[in-house]
Amino acid sequence: MTSVPMFRIPRPFDMHTHLRQGPLMRLVTRLTARHFDGAIVMPNTNPPILTGEDACRYQSDIMRSARGANASFLPLTLIKLTMETTPDIIIQAKKLGVVAAKMYPVGVTTNSADGVDLDKLRELYPTFKAMEDTGVILCIHGEVGGDVFVLDREEFFFEYLRQLHRDFPTLRIVLEHITTKAAVDLVRNLGKTVAASITLHHLFLTLNNVLCDPVGAGEFLRPHHACRPYAKRPEDRDALVRAAISGDPKFFWGTDSAPHPFDKKEADCCAAGVWTTPVALPLLVELFEKHEALERLAGFSSQFGLAFYGIKRRTRMLTMVKRAWTVPLAYDVRNGAKFVTKIVPFRAGQKISWKVARY
Amino acid sequence: MTSVPMFRIPRPFDMHTHLRQGPLMRLVTRLTARHFDGAIVMPNTNPPILTGEDACRYQSDIMRSARGANASFLPLTLIKLTMETTPDIIIQAKKLGVVAAKMYPVGVTTNSADGVDLDKLRELYPTFKAMEDTGVILCIHGEVGGDVFVLDREEFFFEYLRQLHRDFPTLRIVLEHITTKAAVDLVRNLGKTVAASITLHHLFLTLNNVLCDPVGAGEFLRPHHACRPYAKRPEDRDALVRAAISGDPKFFWGTDSAPHPFDKKEADCCAAGVWTTPVALPLLVELFEKHEALERLAGFSSQFGLAFYGIKRRTRMLTMVKRAWTVPLAYDVRNGAKFVTKIVPFRAGQKISWKVARY
Repeated sequence: MTSVPMFRIPRPFDMHTHLRQGPLMRLVTRLTARHFDGAIVMPNTNPPILTGEDACRYQSDIMRSARGANASFLPLTLIKLTMETTPDIIIQAKKLGVVAAKMYPVGVTTNSADGVDLDKLRELYPTFKAMEDTGVILCIHGEVGGDVFVLDREEFFFEYLRQLHRDFPTLRIVLEHITTKAAVDLVRNLGKTVAASITLHHLFLTLNNVLCDPVGAGEFLRPHHACRPYAKRPEDRDALVRAAISGDPKFFWGTDSAPHPFDKKEADCCAAGVWTTPVALPLLVELFEKHEALERLAGFSSQFGLAFYGIKRRTRMLTMVKRAWTVPLAYDVRNGAKFVTKIVPFRAGQKISWKVARY
Repeated sequence: MTSVPMFRIPRPFDMHTHLRQGPLMRLVTRLTARHFDGAIVMPNTNPPILTGEDACRYQSDIMRSARGANASFLPLTLIKLTMETTPDIIIQAKKLGVVAAKMYPVGVTTNSADGVDLDKLRELYPTFKAMEDTGVILCIHGEVGGDVFVLDREEFFFEYLRQLHRDFPTLRIVLEHITTKAAVDLVRNLGKTVAASITLHHLFLTLNNVLCDPVGAGEFLRPHHACRPYAKRPEDRDALVRAAISGDPKFFWGTDSAPHPFDKKEADCCAAGVWTTPVALPLLVELFEKHEALERLAGFSSQFGLAFYGIKRRTRMLTMVKRAWTVPLAYDVRNGAKFVTKIVPFRAGQKISWKVARY
């Protein structure tokens, strides 16, 4: 009898995820709740989550969907900042338990046409002030839009981050899904109220995996590796890995797992987002094992994010076991018995060495 | 009665195109022959064109397909260099009328797994010597492959171009479909036996149009804008435009028009290539008109390329008329009456202001 390596870790808390709506939400939520203790849930749905009441309704929907998989799963639903978000909306949302609001500059990603106009950022200063005063966290999609070259968009955003941090020094800010070495360096050098989330896929992909991913004897454009912000150079990816395994509490895990129906990805105009949920924790364990950093996994995958947000949770454990499995090519989305669409996970059809043994 | 602007130009000669095989070849060839006087036809078919005899057979097939559209259409079919291409193959091909051989480094684009290993370039020196001696032109896909970051692949190839030009100074070399300002500068500074082709789409696209192309209220990944080498930064695109309209005979037009069945483009693994044939000349006229360079159009679109290759052609004219038309969403490929697939042109569904009036 050979013994199979296994170990127990605190269930991760996903500090950035997309649970969508309707039948897609029900599937994605169940799969998320199996591996995660809870999640910070993005509000760029359609229609968007704009107020505390919207957020509470959305949270109830999600909890209902999660119940069968993990009754204690905690979805923290955010509100979306628009140019119409008033201080009152913030104060009211805070009363209803909303922990953070998400700022999307106009047009930078899925459903962001109603986002914030960076040229008019000062018009939102009373709102940021209310967030600072009430302790509502500012989550930022840190890219500029417009005609700026795609690979420069994150760095061009830095001036706005610096400005907000200078003008609201006690406002807690999360620069979401960072993709560059420059972002790692910036966040590390700003005050302790600024942190960053790092996705699963940005720890593995570079832009080569988007534009010329090796598959069989060829190399291909891969819509399922396309997301915002895009993965960058190998040296950027390596800087993200170093930050993730460093034990620096300014960097924590937010998968930004973002499912789209497969025919919105494999299309003439392909939607942005990588859906990593079913493979995220196993791949993260693989990565930390490879870098001999398993003892820092719990910090990155649950403790640092919760600490930054000030969320107290009873620690719930799960067991990881080293047993190879093959990622399904797709997951069917159903409405009752009726097939609706399918969604394609990251690493579809590939082998992964670790799996979650018990939920 | 208002008069519609029109003018006559020599039919262009496409110094780089893909005509494919079978039913796709028949459709694409007819459409190419309508607007072009002839074309340099790439040999990375499946099976590939490896010898003079292959090239002659392929040329006959193409001429048969072109006949109804343009009886004088001249397809010049190349042979593909592999590690097995001997000097004898070159000498024999030259006797059969082959004007050039195409070098693909291994794995850099469609059907290039049997390409040239750059680490063993010297093993092909007797072959390059035979090309230099017989006047067979060397056409190069100027990118390295492997793990090199996708946006650096063209510039990393420069050392091989410099080496070949130094060791075979009278060998005529075309650096195909250049995409960077650095390539423009290099070709301009090398000897007169080195020239470059520039595609239609690289005069219009940047990497933004691949990764975050504005469509409606959103921005999307666009497989139909994906090709090798990829379009780069705005300043690179602008340098290509300046080279094209400059009147410098070292830069000439090769569309690299590269059709794929739509379901190979809109897929999990998307094939590389932009199919521009039906819109190429109208868009080129738009561009030269915008830059007030119409008097240099004939140089770029036919004369410079033919002069570099040493091809003498009787000048055949066609008439351009400024009358807006909408590009079809797709072209059906048929085998006799039977639908086979469809192919999506560049600028599908969009308006173009110039059209070819008479063939």
